[in-house]
Amino acid sequence: MCPFVDIEQITDASIDEYVECPVDSKLLNAKFQSLDYDNCENVLYQREERQKNHRQLLKQQFARWVVMCFIGIFTAIIACSIDIAIHRLSTVKYSLLKSYFDETMKTSYLFIPVLLWIAWNSGFVLIAAILVAYGEPVAAGSGIPQIKCFLNGVMIPHVVRLFTLFCKVVGVVLSVVGGLAIGKEGPMIHSGAVVAAGISQGRSSTFRRDFKIFTYFRTDTEKRDFVSGGAAAGVSAAFGAPVGGVLFSLEEGASFWNQALTWRIFFASMMSTFTLNMIQSYIHGVPWQLSYPGLLNFGQFSDISYTGAEIPIYLVMAVVGGLLGALFNHINLKLCIFRKRHIRTPLGQVLEAVLVAAMTAVAAFLLIYFVEDCQALGKDPIVHPLQMYCLDGQYSSMAAIWFQTPEQSVKSLFHDPPDSYRPLTVALFGIVYFLLATWTYGLSVPSGLFIPCLLTGAAWGRLIGISVRGVFPDAEWANPGKFALVGAAAQLGGVVRMTISLTVILIEATGSISFGFPIMIVLMVAKWVGDLFNEGLYDIHVKLAGVPILPWEPPHLTSNIMASEVMSHPVTTFDMNETVGHVVNVLKKDLHEGFPVVDHINPAPNQPGRSTFGLLRGTITRSQLIVLLKNKAFTDPTTGIRGSNRLTLDHFREIYPRFPKIEQIHITEREKACVINLVPYMNPAPYTVFDNTSLPRIFKLFRGLGLRHLVVVDKNNEVIGIVTRKDLARYRFESHKGSKGLEELQMSFN
Amino acid sequence: MCPFVDIEQITDASIDEYVECPVDSKLLNAKFQSLDYDNCENVLYQREERQKNHRQLLKQQFARWVVMCFIGIFTAIIACSIDIAIHRLSTVKYSLLKSYFDETMKTSYLFIPVLLWIAWNSGFVLIAAILVAYGEPVAAGSGIPQIKCFLNGVMIPHVVRLFTLFCKVVGVVLSVVGGLAIGKEGPMIHSGAVVAAGISQGRSSTFRRDFKIFTYFRTDTEKRDFVSGGAAAGVSAAFGAPVGGVLFSLEEGASFWNQALTWRIFFASMMSTFTLNMIQSYIHGVPWQLSYPGLLNFGQFSDISYTGAEIPIYLVMAVVGGLLGALFNHINLKLCIFRKRHIRTPLGQVLEAVLVAAMTAVAAFLLIYFVEDCQALGKDPIVHPLQMYCLDGQYSSMAAIWFQTPEQSVKSLFHDPPDSYRPLTVALFGIVYFLLATWTYGLSVPSGLFIPCLLTGAAWGRLIGISVRGVFPDAEWANPGKFALVGAAAQLGGVVRMTISLTVILIEATGSISFGFPIMIVLMVAKWVGDLFNEGLYDIHVKLAGVPILPWEPPHLTSNIMASEVMSHPVTTFDMNETVGHVVNVLKKDLHEGFPVVDHINPAPNQPGRSTFGLLRGTITRSQLIVLLKNKAFTDPTTGIRGSNRLTLDHFREIYPRFPKIEQIHITEREKACVINLVPYMNPAPYTVFDNTSLPRIFKLFRGLGLRHLVVVDKNNEVIGIVTRKDLARYRFESHKGSKGLEELQMSFN
Repeated sequence: MCPFVDIEQITDASIDEYVECPVDSKLLNAKFQSLDYDNCENVLYQREERQKNHRQLLKQQFARWVVMCFIGIFTAIIACSIDIAIHRLSTVKYSLLKSYFDETMKTSYLFIPVLLWIAWNSGFVLIAAILVAYGEPVAAGSGIPQIKCFLNGVMIPHVVRLFTLFCKVVGVVLSVVGGLAIGKEGPMIHSGAVVAAGISQGRSSTFRRDFKIFTYFRTDTEKRDFVSGGAAAGVSAAFGAPVGGVLFSLEEGASFWNQALTWRIFFASMMSTFTLNMIQSYIHGVPWQLSYPGLLNFGQFSDISYTGAEIPIYLVMAVVGGLLGALFNHINLKLCIFRKRHIRTPLGQVLEAVLVAAMTAVAAFLLIYFVEDCQALGKDPIVHPLQMYCLDGQYSSMAAIWFQTPEQSVKSLFHDPPDSYRPLTVALFGIVYFLLATWTYGLSVPSGLFIPCLLTGAAWGRLIGISVRGVFPDAEWANPGKFALVGAAAQLGGVVRMTISLTVILIEATGSISFGFPIMIVLMVAKWVGDLFNEGLYDIHVKLAGVPILPWEPPHLTSNIMASEVMSHPVTTFDMNETVGHVVNVLKKDLHEGFPVVDHINPAPNQPGRSTFGLLRGTITRSQLIVLLKNKAFTDPTTGIRGSNRLTLDHFREIYPRFPKIEQIHITEREKACVINLVPYMNPAPYTVFDNTSLPRIFKLFRGLGLRHLVVVDKNNEVIGIVTRKDLARYRFESHKGSKGLEELQMSFN
Repeated sequence: MCPFVDIEQITDASIDEYVECPVDSKLLNAKFQSLDYDNCENVLYQREERQKNHRQLLKQQFARWVVMCFIGIFTAIIACSIDIAIHRLSTVKYSLLKSYFDETMKTSYLFIPVLLWIAWNSGFVLIAAILVAYGEPVAAGSGIPQIKCFLNGVMIPHVVRLFTLFCKVVGVVLSVVGGLAIGKEGPMIHSGAVVAAGISQGRSSTFRRDFKIFTYFRTDTEKRDFVSGGAAAGVSAAFGAPVGGVLFSLEEGASFWNQALTWRIFFASMMSTFTLNMIQSYIHGVPWQLSYPGLLNFGQFSDISYTGAEIPIYLVMAVVGGLLGALFNHINLKLCIFRKRHIRTPLGQVLEAVLVAAMTAVAAFLLIYFVEDCQALGKDPIVHPLQMYCLDGQYSSMAAIWFQTPEQSVKSLFHDPPDSYRPLTVALFGIVYFLLATWTYGLSVPSGLFIPCLLTGAAWGRLIGISVRGVFPDAEWANPGKFALVGAAAQLGGVVRMTISLTVILIEATGSISFGFPIMIVLMVAKWVGDLFNEGLYDIHVKLAGVPILPWEPPHLTSNIMASEVMSHPVTTFDMNETVGHVVNVLKKDLHEGFPVVDHINPAPNQPGRSTFGLLRGTITRSQLIVLLKNKAFTDPTTGIRGSNRLTLDHFREIYPRFPKIEQIHITEREKACVINLVPYMNPAPYTVFDNTSLPRIFKLFRGLGLRHLVVVDKNNEVIGIVTRKDLARYRFESHKGSKGLEELQMSFN
């Protein structure tokens, strides 16, 4: 299964629809709910705000900093735990395998370590896949697309739950130890986001505990701010890149750059790096040295430099990276579509994951067995040197790449002495790893994308480096490790197509400012080249899942599309005083989340054009209505008895964000005749647009303010429609080969 | 005179008002025009957009990249020229002075070199001050506040003119060579912005040339995008910090983070670094080595490391930096207010600048004369070693700091061997330089703020470093140069209070990722401490000039302020068909820039509450009306003869952005009876808010979309007021000592 398609959402009907659809990322899934980043400033809110003074303001500000601090600390602790667990288990695995290989090498029982290897991989991956497929499907994949969607304003169910965190953390450890071609960085970022959501909301729905702290932060807006901090802390811990982390959050959160928030996100990032640094320094026996800022350690490139003559080579490598990245994305997309069609049960998903794990072991063994690349021991610190068929005092270079975690392999390709690998070794390794990685991303296990891309790129980059060294044998700059770094950047840039944040992350992770310029150029060109063919892999997966994500800018050539075409209509409206029965009926029938509240005036006799929609007075959301019904906040018109005292914002915060469904609320027949006064609860000043507003203007309003609904009114301020995120996300401008121009996506209601 | 207060704007009345005003930054200057970052999507625009196809879109996109490329290249060339000119002239200056000092040292004619020094300083600064005070007052100061205002949406007159660039470039060279305590970095950033505005608009109003290219980019929005790129390119050239440049632009441009634009800004930044690197490598005789990425070269800190035990010392230094920064800002503010009151003529400004230049020479000489700090020649590469009263083979350490550009002094304090300075030398130098720098910033010369802050900080930082070394004489980490770097960061952070962009700029400029974490902590703490007392210096100057800048977030405690209180009313409106005479009269009387266009329907008899304002149909701006009048786009109702063919957008672009005044347009009495149909030209779908919309909501709309006007309507969509940037900027929440809480600024119409 592809990441974050909820299995329950895929019905047979929808799959058929999918199969018939010519291109597969042309559907929007109507099931995804939007988040609302526009505060509802109703009477209750106004009242609370009016009572606020300078002191309370300071207290809230302080609480925000404290929460960010803890987010940083806990994210770092989790990231560290993942790292340590992987390190320990991998050491056990490769020591064991090495001893078996060494023992059986001279006999005919070589199949024993191979089987052991296959069994080890399959066993660990089996547990990881079961956790994900049966436990929490949203824990699959890297988590970055999901966080991207969350920050963009789409709620992916369960994405910030504690149980998801558990599955993700345990799953990624098992999967990496199970030898899959994946990294742990994406899952660390996702972990940061979950930690942030958990701490800031002061409760956990997995444990059904509510600590009643920070209730003020229980709005979509505040939660998003903290999740941004968590994601940044995750990046910071994973790559030792606090600045890159902030940029990552800002780039994805997009529409809300704000100095105070940026500063807090930065604080979370720094706390994360600092905590990690402390723990790692302690573990390495040098407490207080603080020389371990990040987990993804590419080693020092401080002696690296470059001359203008190398730039053309880098440009060629960037083009190669862009092409290979586009190819990677293309193959992965096809595989995901295949999976969606044919591997639809959790069992199937688990079996596929186990198959890939076994295949990885087999492929590695075959490469080690057939590629003869013997290097003298000693020049290079190999942890588990395997002799295989080499002479005494030598080790198999191919085995050395495989007998460590992918992250260590990246480091080896970057830093090993120039002649550590024969060209054939890195070439074959690169091809096999590329294919394994395309197959792996999208499996039902937690899996980061960075490391496999970097490793593939490092392999072909080193190959180019070896060739360059062959052409210029005496050139000091022709260091294969440097070309491996360029290749890694090109490949990663070609696959994920992130921009400035990725650049900063790579610069921080390599610790090399002086080499920053070539890395930037390579990332930019790789993105350009890749963009000619398809989109970044994260975007592909987001679209494949039909998430109504809003891009950065309004689609091109849409200025002549007006609100009247975009909006949903007719729209269900409520009167300012509405009977409970009507509310209940509407909520059961109409699936919208927001409703205009109107004033039905008598049509003026000299204005025959007036419709009966009513003048807009405000908007109210489904969740607000649910809370009103649940708390019986209505009046019996016959007796005048009020069912409940007036509600406060705390009533709404209490059940945020998991509001019950209308079917779960019991309303008696007698209550149905009661009347709810919506005025104190509705948003009395919603943003509106006229029916002749163009799509780009609506888009900017939506994107800039993080709206969930936008009421469309005519020139008399009468409600004629409502625009939601999905109405906007339907329009998409494609500029890739095969499908140029504006297109309108269909909704799938599976 | 303080930067960017136009001298003509200061009248006696306003000064008096100013004097009476208890605190001086509590006035908004009504003269500043806003920029409009919301495109007017009128019928003409719609028509043009409809005719666009995929090919044209590509062409425009391509043009954007080309323009960004040239912005980067030209900015780098200008930055390089400034650098080279300063370097050459300074070398001449100090060689000359040294030879005179050496000659006269043993005689009683020591006054000769001192007078020469004073004369040199005064002479150069005299020309710089004349250029600025009589030529272009807006070229004074660093330029960063002005660019900040521009990106925020306020037009500072002349800020992106070519003549301003000329004054700035020549002025900054002369001022630095004239020995003032200033840097060249701020002016370089300003230069980048001017270059960007010039290239993107394809014309120059200084030379009255219009190349008729890129006319499509003649809107405030497009211009802003390019100016962002130019500012980034400037930062990139000045500090060798391409990523920092992008962040600087984004941090100031704030509300428009957008991936495609970010990517283009990044491209401009990189082109700038690359060009600069090429030129510098060529000049240094190693073409293609590409080892000179930036002009502000702090030298390599690659061997720098730190341990946890140092963190507390850094924290203390950060607090000191914050306190000293706040003190710096306080003194500078008082001085600026003094200047505003008492030094109001260009002549006075020129004389003050010359006085400061002379005083700088005198102070330097006195320090050199009285402080005896002799060091052995040879350990440290001094360019102009001055023996003074030292023994043969020695040089005066105090003279060594003064006998070079401030930038080189920073480098010396960072990198000179531990015992190069006696504590007294750096202490006295630090105090004197601090005072000189506070006096200098705000003079009528182009003057960057970064270098004086860094130098002051480096001085007291090194002092602390020397002390630490005294306490831990054997500790390897107790390197005074490292503490100088920390002090420099703390001082700069304490003065300017920029956040993440500054961090990245400093990290890129020092080339030291591994030391990034302490720098971040120090900047953060210095900002916190400084913020307790006052604001960053740029913000102080912006407020002092009364610029209606919109901060990041709505002011606190304003949720209960409604649109009806914020808005200007009554508001002048136009009918959809309006007589020329009325339009001309309104434009002459009413100073607003935007007007609602309304439809006066007959009030419905059963709705007695209806006012006579009319239903909103659109908005039209003063500049649009001017273009209509200028092109006689009206119809004679009696004859039906149309005065002009229908206008296209090109008519508007042609005179953008310098629209004539209404007084400059000749309208005959006969024409006054004609009728203009505003419908094709007005913005038919303006953003609106209801009268009960809270200030924070209006603020978010304004800030998020870069609006210039926002029409306030009642529940019947009748126009009741208009909100402008100034209406919003009036509300300010102060949290500093002495003035806590929300305050409402007054407008000054001087």
